[in-house]
Amino acid sequence: MGMILRKAKRISLAIGQINPTVGDFEGNARKICSFLEQAEKTGSDLVVFPELAVCGYPVWDLANKSGFVDRGLRAVAQIANSTRNKRITAIFGFIDRSEKGSKKNHNSLAVVRGGRVVLKQAKTLLPTYDVFLEEIFFLRAKTHKTFSFNGTKVGPCICEDLWDDDYATKPGRLLKQKGAQVLVNLSASPYSDSGVGRRIEVICRKAAEYGLWVIYVNQVGGQDDLIFDGRSCVVAPNGKMTFVAPPFQEGLFYTTIDLNKKSRTLFIQRSKKTSSFVRIKEVYDALVLGLADYIRKNGFRNVVVGLSGGIDSALVAALACDALGSKFVIGAALPGPYSSKRSFEDARLMARKLGIEFRVKSIMSQYEHFMNATIAEKRKRGAPIREKRSISVAMENLQARLRGLQLMYISNDEGALLLTTGNKSELAMGYSTLYGDMCGGLSVIGDVYKTDVYRLARYRNSISPVIPLSIFSKAPSAELRPNQKDQDSLPPYSVLDRILYHYIEKNQSANEIVRTLRPKRITARTIRRVLTTVDHNEYKRRQLPPALRITEKAWFGRRMPITNEFDI
Amino acid sequence: MGMILRKAKRISLAIGQINPTVGDFEGNARKICSFLEQAEKTGSDLVVFPELAVCGYPVWDLANKSGFVDRGLRAVAQIANSTRNKRITAIFGFIDRSEKGSKKNHNSLAVVRGGRVVLKQAKTLLPTYDVFLEEIFFLRAKTHKTFSFNGTKVGPCICEDLWDDDYATKPGRLLKQKGAQVLVNLSASPYSDSGVGRRIEVICRKAAEYGLWVIYVNQVGGQDDLIFDGRSCVVAPNGKMTFVAPPFQEGLFYTTIDLNKKSRTLFIQRSKKTSSFVRIKEVYDALVLGLADYIRKNGFRNVVVGLSGGIDSALVAALACDALGSKFVIGAALPGPYSSKRSFEDARLMARKLGIEFRVKSIMSQYEHFMNATIAEKRKRGAPIREKRSISVAMENLQARLRGLQLMYISNDEGALLLTTGNKSELAMGYSTLYGDMCGGLSVIGDVYKTDVYRLARYRNSISPVIPLSIFSKAPSAELRPNQKDQDSLPPYSVLDRILYHYIEKNQSANEIVRTLRPKRITARTIRRVLTTVDHNEYKRRQLPPALRITEKAWFGRRMPITNEFDI
Repeated sequence: MGMILRKAKRISLAIGQINPTVGDFEGNARKICSFLEQAEKTGSDLVVFPELAVCGYPVWDLANKSGFVDRGLRAVAQIANSTRNKRITAIFGFIDRSEKGSKKNHNSLAVVRGGRVVLKQAKTLLPTYDVFLEEIFFLRAKTHKTFSFNGTKVGPCICEDLWDDDYATKPGRLLKQKGAQVLVNLSASPYSDSGVGRRIEVICRKAAEYGLWVIYVNQVGGQDDLIFDGRSCVVAPNGKMTFVAPPFQEGLFYTTIDLNKKSRTLFIQRSKKTSSFVRIKEVYDALVLGLADYIRKNGFRNVVVGLSGGIDSALVAALACDALGSKFVIGAALPGPYSSKRSFEDARLMARKLGIEFRVKSIMSQYEHFMNATIAEKRKRGAPIREKRSISVAMENLQARLRGLQLMYISNDEGALLLTTGNKSELAMGYSTLYGDMCGGLSVIGDVYKTDVYRLARYRNSISPVIPLSIFSKAPSAELRPNQKDQDSLPPYSVLDRILYHYIEKNQSANEIVRTLRPKRITARTIRRVLTTVDHNEYKRRQLPPALRITEKAWFGRRMPITNEFDI
Repeated sequence: MGMILRKAKRISLAIGQINPTVGDFEGNARKICSFLEQAEKTGSDLVVFPELAVCGYPVWDLANKSGFVDRGLRAVAQIANSTRNKRITAIFGFIDRSEKGSKKNHNSLAVVRGGRVVLKQAKTLLPTYDVFLEEIFFLRAKTHKTFSFNGTKVGPCICEDLWDDDYATKPGRLLKQKGAQVLVNLSASPYSDSGVGRRIEVICRKAAEYGLWVIYVNQVGGQDDLIFDGRSCVVAPNGKMTFVAPPFQEGLFYTTIDLNKKSRTLFIQRSKKTSSFVRIKEVYDALVLGLADYIRKNGFRNVVVGLSGGIDSALVAALACDALGSKFVIGAALPGPYSSKRSFEDARLMARKLGIEFRVKSIMSQYEHFMNATIAEKRKRGAPIREKRSISVAMENLQARLRGLQLMYISNDEGALLLTTGNKSELAMGYSTLYGDMCGGLSVIGDVYKTDVYRLARYRNSISPVIPLSIFSKAPSAELRPNQKDQDSLPPYSVLDRILYHYIEKNQSANEIVRTLRPKRITARTIRRVLTTVDHNEYKRRQLPPALRITEKAWFGRRMPITNEFDI
């Protein structure tokens, strides 16, 4: 008897890791069609796009606007039509109408080939936690379908469908039972500095658990506060990753799946902690992408940043230059009565190093003018004048707000988006002025702890030294009263950030944090004071612009009442 | 044979319609114990309190803070203990720990009697839509228990458990099957002007459907943007309401349930539209309560309102006086370069009629000072000077922001909460200035359409004429440029509000609205322009303070992306 020669079953796969814009059906469909065309030309069998690729993700209430859904269905028809006379199969996400009578729709995918839609499959597991609120907008799938493809059975599913640990229904298992050999998972998973490792661990573990190939395709790009990192991948049935696309980068990526190749060695992917260097580099790249996309997708060309001479505004200016190019960045120094000469010089030097426009708008005379009028008015009505004795909080805030006034004038006058420069530690503690330094359309580092702000700035300088060293070495100060230092009213940032991390990211109680941080010699008194301050400043954060999200617990996904008497 | 004499089964019921403060376990427990004591003294058999009465509702992320849950459990023990040596039974809501290993807890109720907890029951149906996101924070109940009470079987449940139309599980039916004769429903249902009628219709219909008595106890009071209206009630098995507690009022209310009295006549409660007068009166009362509670629960004593001489700030000042008393309200007129004499005089007259302090803080010289410096600075760097030709948006916004600066100075200097005066129509259209008239800690009428602002003002004047008639008769204007009128850039408010109602409250698409409003002769062009403007101004609303909610679709429960290319 001769050898049986069998043609190896291989899938030439193209991964359309696209950066869609929410609601831009025309642009998104054009991008999908163009990638599909390229994939066909290079001989790919299958091209896969992310969850809701047609409309972008997330869309919130838009999912229940009938005009929005209709527009998406027309795009689906257009994409399907573009596969006429092609041999390629394409998969992409869209919003499908549910059965009549329901107000909710489906988060669905379409498989298209030969000019028509050959399969539609809705998402089964609808994540409803954090910033995901899909149960509010979507209806679950009740059936699970596979499709055949060059003699291979493929089970298509969407994002959370693979994250089935906490659910009774396991779409992956159901698809396996229906004969699927390959799972295709269309996703829109946002980046967070500690979540990526866990995501990869789950994808690999599920491939091994079900003994299936998994094709995971993730969206890339910024959408308001969320940043999607792409990093689409392919995992073999033994749990080993055979391909991964680069993070933070749009593109069409090619790989091959060899279905005949079988390995018995189970490959266990541990959820490994990324190194500090990689974490910081990735946070930097994420912020650049999030910033660039917010600007571009909202039709801005340039931005304005208030340069205080401190590390926060220095980092934001550097990020803005990397996102947009320095000629689109206006730096404005706004010296006031308690600004130091050193800070002003640092701001000027920074602007020069970055090559950005540098404007000086002193708030000094506005401040004096305001204070003189205030004191005169108080005197006139016989009110007590506190302003002469010391600098009150009202007077500090006034300085911050006069700066906001100047920056917003530039923004409105020149159509430049004002970037908010406050960091997460400050925002947690309310160490920021509403309508002052909190002004702006996008908070660039509002989800970055102060200690990470320094790390990011050092990382940026390791590429090219744009941030003057003097900015690193001076003690952080708002410079709103003589010789003021942040550390006069806050614990050292290394201590503060540790406490905040356990309270915000880990949602620990005061007692738990006291226990956890006892070995670090952080007192219960300090911890309770920090926690109470965080809670009391919820009202400020409610008025914060979207803050680019790089942790697992950013302000927008944190839901705390303002009115709250609970004594930590 | 003689007649069988049966002792009539009657329940002397006390309804503890309390106004709890979120997180104030001590205060809430004290209130519950005091009402419980009173109810016992007056011979009540049963006293019922609202959903999560121990911690207040809603609590969002606090529900998963272990310290928060622990504190509530201690309060439960304290309340249970207070029933020792009493004959009364009490029911109230609290957060219960779930089985080990789960990160979520239960939204539960406790039945206490004779010094101990005799039954705990978790909520089964967890509303997850609009501002309710309970699936995020809570775990569902799996079992349903009844308890016996003077020979009567009572089935306790929580809020949504009775709103079972859209759910497969029907807790009311399950409790009936277990022999319950009376359903006790602990609720926290927020007020909305069109939702109250529907709520009453559901309670009555469910009583009739299950043939059970229903005791519905609702929380009262303000919590951030939400206003709970109370209006607790008792409905007989034939669907007829036998008792209803007053709306917007905390108190212990008594009624009797006669279980022997049986009526075969089914009483069908229609969801009737409240009359326009009642609706406006109730909105007014709701806003007063919401405002008063926000101030009180957040530890403020007084407020400051910018008085422009327009209808919005007039209404807000009147509401503030009704909520706090006129001596706690500071009115500030802030005349600028384009303010009319008439508006200033109206503001002054208004303040006099209300009996509030009236301050005048002109922004004139600050404005000139700023503009002169800006022009000089532009000249210096050779930039084109547009400011001399006409009044730009930047210059309009500057005026609004200089007012914000003055008002926030008063707020910070005197610890008075600044009230935001913008209405829903303006906020929808972005006809408001960020960090200008949008400044403030609470938006009082941010959920009230402009046409309703006039209705509310007329209603207030029908009680006592505090708002000068001249304010009603002048055309609305921001007075930021010469002879400016709102209607220069917006459709008439009667038209605008109609369009907004269909877009925001009814979530209709452009095509649907065009069809609906064709008989009103509102053009498609006007409609599309309004819808596009609403969408483009999402970024402003993201930075709005909490806005007291009086409709079914307020800003906080509306989730729209800022980055959104969808062309309506």
